[in-house]
Amino acid sequence: MSHTTYQPGRVHLLRVPTGEDLLGYLEAFVAANGITAAWLSYLGAVQSAALRYYDQNEKEYCDFHIHQHLEVVSGTGNVSLLNGEPFIHTHAVLADSSGRAFGGHVNHGCEVWALEVKIEEYQGSPPQRLFDEATGLSLWGASPR
Amino acid sequence: MSHTTYQPGRVHLLRVPTGEDLLGYLEAFVAANGITAAWLSYLGAVQSAALRYYDQNEKEYCDFHIHQHLEVVSGTGNVSLLNGEPFIHTHAVLADSSGRAFGGHVNHGCEVWALEVKIEEYQGSPPQRLFDEATGLSLWGASPR
Amino acid sequence: MSHTTYQPGRVHLLRVPTGEDLLGYLEAFVAANGITAAWLSYLGAVQSAALRYYDQNEKEYCDFHIHQHLEVVSGTGNVSLLNGEPFIHTHAVLADSSGRAFGGHVNHGCEVWALEVKIEEYQGSPPQRLFDEATGLSLWGASPR
Repeated sequence: MSHTTYQPGRVHLLRVPTGEDLLGYLEAFVAANGITAAWLSYLGAVQSAALRYYDQNEKEYCDFHIHQHLEVVSGTGNVSLLNGEPFIHTHAVLADSSGRAFGGHVNHGCEVWALEVKIEEYQGSPPQRLFDEATGLSLWGASPR
Repeated sequence: MSHTTYQPGRVHLLRVPTGEDLLGYLEAFVAANGITAAWLSYLGAVQSAALRYYDQNEKEYCDFHIHQHLEVVSGTGNVSLLNGEPFIHTHAVLADSSGRAFGGHVNHGCEVWALEVKIEEYQGSPPQRLFDEATGLSLWGASPR
Repeated sequence: MSHTTYQPGRVHLLRVPTGEDLLGYLEAFVAANGITAAWLSYLGAVQSAALRYYDQNEKEYCDFHIHQHLEVVSGTGNVSLLNGEPFIHTHAVLADSSGRAFGGHVNHGCEVWALEVKIEEYQGSPPQRLFDEATGLSLWGASPR
């Protein structure tokens, strides 16, 4: 089983500035702060969204954009290692002016209006992503315990 | 950059009683327990919902109600300081009997059916909300480190 | 008030293998690891979904399936005690290839494609679920402090 146990570490609360790319900003933050094992939660709003859906038959991502101002209702994600570098995997639920909800894998291209993020770090060996033939994805392998 | 680092503190698990106002109850709980820096997560159901969408052009909230019994699928939020007082900012994803999802900024007027809430506190100087001209919102400023 | 305060404990990061039942796998994991007070967060994708909506008038769950490959955008839940045994309560937001979001109470029958889960444990007496006449649900009662 791919399972690792950690002790809770530092918690970061940050605001992503207006106009920044949601994913790009978090990637830069994580790299700058040496974060390698963490969980993310966030809320706020974006000026437009870039999401992905994974086609399980074709084993490839399908990208789409939502060119609307949207609430970020619930963002969730994690930081682990891919090829020895910190990698962010995050999904988000968005909502439009009528409250209709959308969701998917967060891609570069989500332009922040306002965003409040919690990043909680874990003490221990970070999970490592390895290519998984069955799904075509890089998933947590049997990381060191 | 508006970024502060914390150590994890106490965690509160609570049930919000049936008939209570979701946001009002959490505001009272946070005030009564002296909580000033925290992150929220919750799930359950409401008897009706009051949500808001922020109009980024007009810089004002648009309020709407959903007069249905709804699952609370994912509630996310935080506690920080506004004018020196604890302030809750929270968004929620809701779903109707067909599974259709809605979402937005949680307003007063969400009547609880059953709700389970986690509030995790952080040790350190709480983020402080300051008025931000560009967005018209009170956002986390450069809080003490 | 039903409210208990905890100290943060161990954090588990795990991957649920492809083809597993989402809820069944987490139930087995929690039982095997002696987890009795915890909060869950997860993201990934499922090959099909089984959700429930609680009918507040009839006081019964209505089950439904979504026979599509779906992103798991935001999964939230907790572990507490029901009749002295660990019990998982979890809701999830899902999204289809167009980004349309669905949500509800997670039932057995969600077939995992890929899933990354955080389980954070709490140190203290776990919340205990007791039957609540008003809602017809087993909710957190006045647990020991």
